[in-house]
Amino acid sequence: MRVIVTGAAGFVGSALVRRLQGACDVLATDVRLGGMAGVEGDLTDPSLLAHLFAESCDAVVHLASVPGGAAEQDPELAKRVNIDATMALVNAAACSGTIPRFVFASSIAVFGTALPRIVDDRTPVAPTMVYGAHKAMAEEWIATMTRRGAISGLALRVPGVVARAPGSSGLKSAFMSDLFSGLMARQQSVVPVTRGATVWVMSALRLADNLAHALQVDAVGSITLPALRVSIAELVAAICDHAGAEQDLVRYAPDPEMEAAFGQLPLLKTPCAKRLGFSHDGNVSRLVHAAFAGLRTNFENHDGGKSQ
Amino acid sequence: MRVIVTGAAGFVGSALVRRLQGACDVLATDVRLGGMAGVEGDLTDPSLLAHLFAESCDAVVHLASVPGGAAEQDPELAKRVNIDATMALVNAAACSGTIPRFVFASSIAVFGTALPRIVDDRTPVAPTMVYGAHKAMAEEWIATMTRRGAISGLALRVPGVVARAPGSSGLKSAFMSDLFSGLMARQQSVVPVTRGATVWVMSALRLADNLAHALQVDAVGSITLPALRVSIAELVAAICDHAGAEQDLVRYAPDPEMEAAFGQLPLLKTPCAKRLGFSHDGNVSRLVHAAFAGLRTNFENHDGGKSQ
Repeated sequence: MRVIVTGAAGFVGSALVRRLQGACDVLATDVRLGGMAGVEGDLTDPSLLAHLFAESCDAVVHLASVPGGAAEQDPELAKRVNIDATMALVNAAACSGTIPRFVFASSIAVFGTALPRIVDDRTPVAPTMVYGAHKAMAEEWIATMTRRGAISGLALRVPGVVARAPGSSGLKSAFMSDLFSGLMARQQSVVPVTRGATVWVMSALRLADNLAHALQVDAVGSITLPALRVSIAELVAAICDHAGAEQDLVRYAPDPEMEAAFGQLPLLKTPCAKRLGFSHDGNVSRLVHAAFAGLRTNFENHDGGKSQ
Repeated sequence: MRVIVTGAAGFVGSALVRRLQGACDVLATDVRLGGMAGVEGDLTDPSLLAHLFAESCDAVVHLASVPGGAAEQDPELAKRVNIDATMALVNAAACSGTIPRFVFASSIAVFGTALPRIVDDRTPVAPTMVYGAHKAMAEEWIATMTRRGAISGLALRVPGVVARAPGSSGLKSAFMSDLFSGLMARQQSVVPVTRGATVWVMSALRLADNLAHALQVDAVGSITLPALRVSIAELVAAICDHAGAEQDLVRYAPDPEMEAAFGQLPLLKTPCAKRLGFSHDGNVSRLVHAAFAGLRTNFENHDGGKSQ
């Protein structure tokens, strides 16, 4: 099975590539591969697509994107990557192999900020951010091409993923990842939401497992992944416990916009994903353990290349 | 009130421009204006947008599109017009005036071909055609920009519209319009669906009324317009009655694909649109009367210019 992975040098992509190698013939691609074997290039460049699909392919896992904060700052670039390149990739996949599998990393950002009391499999999409709108639009194209029998598309709506390598990932939710690296280094950390803020999270390793599972499972359409729902205070306690750091290193400086976007995530029910065998990390202690494991592996393997 | 109308020289656009003139300061635009006053140009050209929004605007009615059959034949061009140009138009509008009204002609094509027994305001979008997917994606961008407070967007999902000028409109549903002009000229007409095929239809004049109403009404989001649901046999009888033609001029040669796309439209309930004052033509006789009236006016005013 020949699988193309985009955004392969990112912290989720590199975990996925490691996870798939051996079982599949993986073709990794990213704007900067940072030493990883694969094809380096920009997905908005048609010649890269021609190169990637020179041989027929059985599956694509599409992780590359211009995420939240970066998309707000440069909506034009974000549109070229998140919509134009995604549609072109879908169309190229449709012409390759026999109804190839197309797994797309969508986002809970498709639900927007005005969330109902419970989010479940029937909650309609209503994005507020540019990023969420782009993901919802890409989901629509993938679903249409799937209904047409051109691909077998599955979009997974991904919660906040921890822990990315420190530095600007362009994601507004990056403060969660920064807690991990900051507390491990015994540094003061500032959190832009309240102590009681509730977030939906998943470790990068668990997400890689879920993406690999999506290649096997018999389902199409858009599915919200299960996520641990934890308060920031619980997350901080578990990180400090794991890292041997003091909790008073963390200062809470709530920002109203960040609190609105990330601080008030309601109950999340994902029966559809659970029935199909997708899963979250189990509990906050395991989440933190897996997040640190992912962070370490990522640093050992390369210099923490960023996904597009 | 300054209103930009795209696709203004098309058979719906020209009816709308006539309807709005006097009450508004209308700026008409189309790839070919065919003698109509306005700005001629291609919406995919950024310099046209700059020109259109040189003065601030209060509203946009966006009718230009690459429709059904044409979009299937050239999906790349269709994407540039239906998605890229539509998003750029929305973004330009967002930067002009004070939260301008943005009325978008969407389509029942967003529902796709596998329809439930009753289509109503809760029916999810599930496009099958390229055109339907593009409309659903554009709706998503308009809704997001509306939630962000950048525009006040309303997408109207339009049923089959009669009667277009004869000739290739690029719409798969053109056979319905061709019945009007063909029977008026006492020509043999071939219908690619069965006698009992049921369609959702609206006259161009009624659609122009609904689009003008959308500029006034206090609603945002996506709304399915009311439509008359008639069988092709009923429509043929009413056209023949109006045109003084014999019904045996019509030959039924059902095509499976056309029957699937246009022949089996189920019950349509549109309480949301009705509550807001949108309406269909009332009955098949009035529909046919209005359709012929629109066709005549269109021919008298110009040579039947095509919308983009």
